[in-house]
Amino acid sequence: MSARAGIVVTGTEVLTGRVVDRNGPWLAERLRELGIDIAHIAVVGDRARDLVGALRFFSGEGMDLILTSGGLGPTADDLTAPVVGDFQGRPSALDEALSERIRLIVEPLLARWPDLDPAAIEAANRKQAMVPEGATVLEPVGTAPGLVVPPLSGTAPTVVVLPGPPGELKPMWAAAVETAAFRAATGAAVEYSQRMLRLFGIPESEIAETLRVADGEDGRISALEITTCLRRGEVEVVTRYEPADQAAYDHFAATVRERHGGILFSDDGRSVDEQVADLLGERGLTIAVAESCTGGLLGARLTERAGSSEYMVGGLVVYANAAKIALAGVDPALIERVGAVSEEVAAGLADGVRSALGADVGVGITGIAGPGGGTEEKPVGTVCFSVAFGEGEHLTRTVHLPGSRFDVRDRSTTVALHLVRRALLGLGAPPL
Amino acid sequence: MSARAGIVVTGTEVLTGRVVDRNGPWLAERLRELGIDIAHIAVVGDRARDLVGALRFFSGEGMDLILTSGGLGPTADDLTAPVVGDFQGRPSALDEALSERIRLIVEPLLARWPDLDPAAIEAANRKQAMVPEGATVLEPVGTAPGLVVPPLSGTAPTVVVLPGPPGELKPMWAAAVETAAFRAATGAAVEYSQRMLRLFGIPESEIAETLRVADGEDGRISALEITTCLRRGEVEVVTRYEPADQAAYDHFAATVRERHGGILFSDDGRSVDEQVADLLGERGLTIAVAESCTGGLLGARLTERAGSSEYMVGGLVVYANAAKIALAGVDPALIERVGAVSEEVAAGLADGVRSALGADVGVGITGIAGPGGGTEEKPVGTVCFSVAFGEGEHLTRTVHLPGSRFDVRDRSTTVALHLVRRALLGLGAPPL
Repeated sequence: MSARAGIVVTGTEVLTGRVVDRNGPWLAERLRELGIDIAHIAVVGDRARDLVGALRFFSGEGMDLILTSGGLGPTADDLTAPVVGDFQGRPSALDEALSERIRLIVEPLLARWPDLDPAAIEAANRKQAMVPEGATVLEPVGTAPGLVVPPLSGTAPTVVVLPGPPGELKPMWAAAVETAAFRAATGAAVEYSQRMLRLFGIPESEIAETLRVADGEDGRISALEITTCLRRGEVEVVTRYEPADQAAYDHFAATVRERHGGILFSDDGRSVDEQVADLLGERGLTIAVAESCTGGLLGARLTERAGSSEYMVGGLVVYANAAKIALAGVDPALIERVGAVSEEVAAGLADGVRSALGADVGVGITGIAGPGGGTEEKPVGTVCFSVAFGEGEHLTRTVHLPGSRFDVRDRSTTVALHLVRRALLGLGAPPL
Repeated sequence: MSARAGIVVTGTEVLTGRVVDRNGPWLAERLRELGIDIAHIAVVGDRARDLVGALRFFSGEGMDLILTSGGLGPTADDLTAPVVGDFQGRPSALDEALSERIRLIVEPLLARWPDLDPAAIEAANRKQAMVPEGATVLEPVGTAPGLVVPPLSGTAPTVVVLPGPPGELKPMWAAAVETAAFRAATGAAVEYSQRMLRLFGIPESEIAETLRVADGEDGRISALEITTCLRRGEVEVVTRYEPADQAAYDHFAATVRERHGGILFSDDGRSVDEQVADLLGERGLTIAVAESCTGGLLGARLTERAGSSEYMVGGLVVYANAAKIALAGVDPALIERVGAVSEEVAAGLADGVRSALGADVGVGITGIAGPGGGTEEKPVGTVCFSVAFGEGEHLTRTVHLPGSRFDVRDRSTTVALHLVRRALLGLGAPPL
């Protein structure tokens, strides 16, 4: 029986969507790695009663562990630490030494604003140094300390209080896991295995059918926790299982491979981004991109990873037709004849940026992201791609992408990466 | 007393962070506009017991309304509709007419995959057409219908069941609000006002001090619900209040303006993106960008909005030094002398792209996004910006940005937009 945990993400700015929460999912993933069962993430506003409501809910559901993120800052709406202390029946008191350590951290950070009120800073420091009785302090990574607050009695949950900024939360989580209070709360948890299959060019309903087939063939599939989802135009099949069920997983993976071999592009969790990076890196090839409707998103995606300068030379954002002509050398007469959104212009962009930067691979993207600009012949979502490589070879394709302007632009970068991957592997265009 | 609501976002893929939830915050915002108090968003995995746990929690907290998103798809892990039906004491039955309508929607969508198994498709259609007794059906926007499921007794919450894809959820929400069951559950809610102030170039702790000052001056600030947050390097102050408290808000806003006039750049909720777009549009100016460490992110941000082709011509992604030289015409000797990350090269990039595209405004960005590549003199996070405009004028600035590679790249686009805004308004560099 594995330990159960819940996560409370605090912050009205998260509740109302002005900030996207990345901590809840990140912590959920870490818990799963530890074999701790994660049942809920609750997002609550900066109100004590709502935070208490979530703590009480998790406690009532029999959680062994509750993680909170956020609400440790200097403003009055940051109230997690005292609320958790009170919930655990542990009143807070000022930790003078901690307050001094916070002061030493904050001082240099505030140096660039010389006009700040010292009394206000001191009040903020002291607020952040209030510690519930019997809690373990997690040293600040930014300015806010974290806490591990055990229950007064053994049956109630232990609460781990972490800061909101992901850059502070992540290292502090590593420290929290090492504390005696954390280990006591989670006991000996089963380690689970998790594997991911990624497919491109298939509707999710077809995967549902494959799950039914695999189930009919071999009842052991019931030992696997399988979830499927669509993400950025790809289907992801994630399976979690106890190590003893490896054979059941292998059989399931083989069934997927047999039915969907041509479009199963990853069975080791690697993303298409990683595959393209590795293919370019292994072969010592460089890449350059010329983007119209994506406006730089593909360049940004190709430079997301540290070390991408090994293969990514640069690119052109050719949003206006004038830019397509001036930067990528596309013939104005060609645009006039076939239109800016055409396979011919996509190929011209790929060739143009490839030669402008002397890159081994050139990518051209031109399309209609919407919401305006569509025609009957070329509706919103029509995007033309071309990958130029080798001795004048091209892999060129027109795709109709669903969704909003955001979706069309985002998915276009996925399609482009798959075309690059398939071009480098000598495969044709994917079934789109 | 306003109605209270909770949101349940389902999906193991959301719980574990493979998909970022945008529905919860979007729905929270819509509820707030309706004057409905939103206390919690719960994210739960695809397990019936966890979904029931969240429904029971919200019900116990006295919610009038529960919204669910997700779990309406064709796969077996999509179980929201029957679980909600059972929770409300309303067994589900097949709605034959609805099943037929779903069939008509699905057929053309699946045409591009001719090899699919018709029996599997039919099973998926029927699964999605199971309706709890007494529930109101929300017509499908994609393939999945939504539901409004009232309680058997008046004191329990009404549950609105919505699909996961945002493009389906949003139009379906509009339909849900119009149903008699929804109106009965929410009654006459107070409409709240919400205002946002945005500041750039200030630590959040300083805003905390301003809140204390405003509080001391005039006790009416207690009538306002004020939350502050840091987002992409800016401080946002969001205030929510009943219309009767307009004067209290006006006084608070005046206090912020008085204390932070130079860095308060928006008091009407407009983002710096919108301000730059409007400034360029009003003056008929065009812009072009040359990006090194941001790799296309600024171009992507400037083309996020429909209609951006009015002012955004294009740009250069000059990731490698070879690209800085070949595309933006930066002198190799200059790079040799002062380094690629320097104000001189940033200005050269701004000038280069401005003249390459004949744009009125040119922006150059070059920096060290990390995690590698830093030196003592130019640590990770050092980013140089230059805006070229007018008759050879430049607004040039070096900034040291905290955080991860992602953060440095993302915040760099914010800094660049603020420099463009300030250049166009004839202001100097911001206090950074």
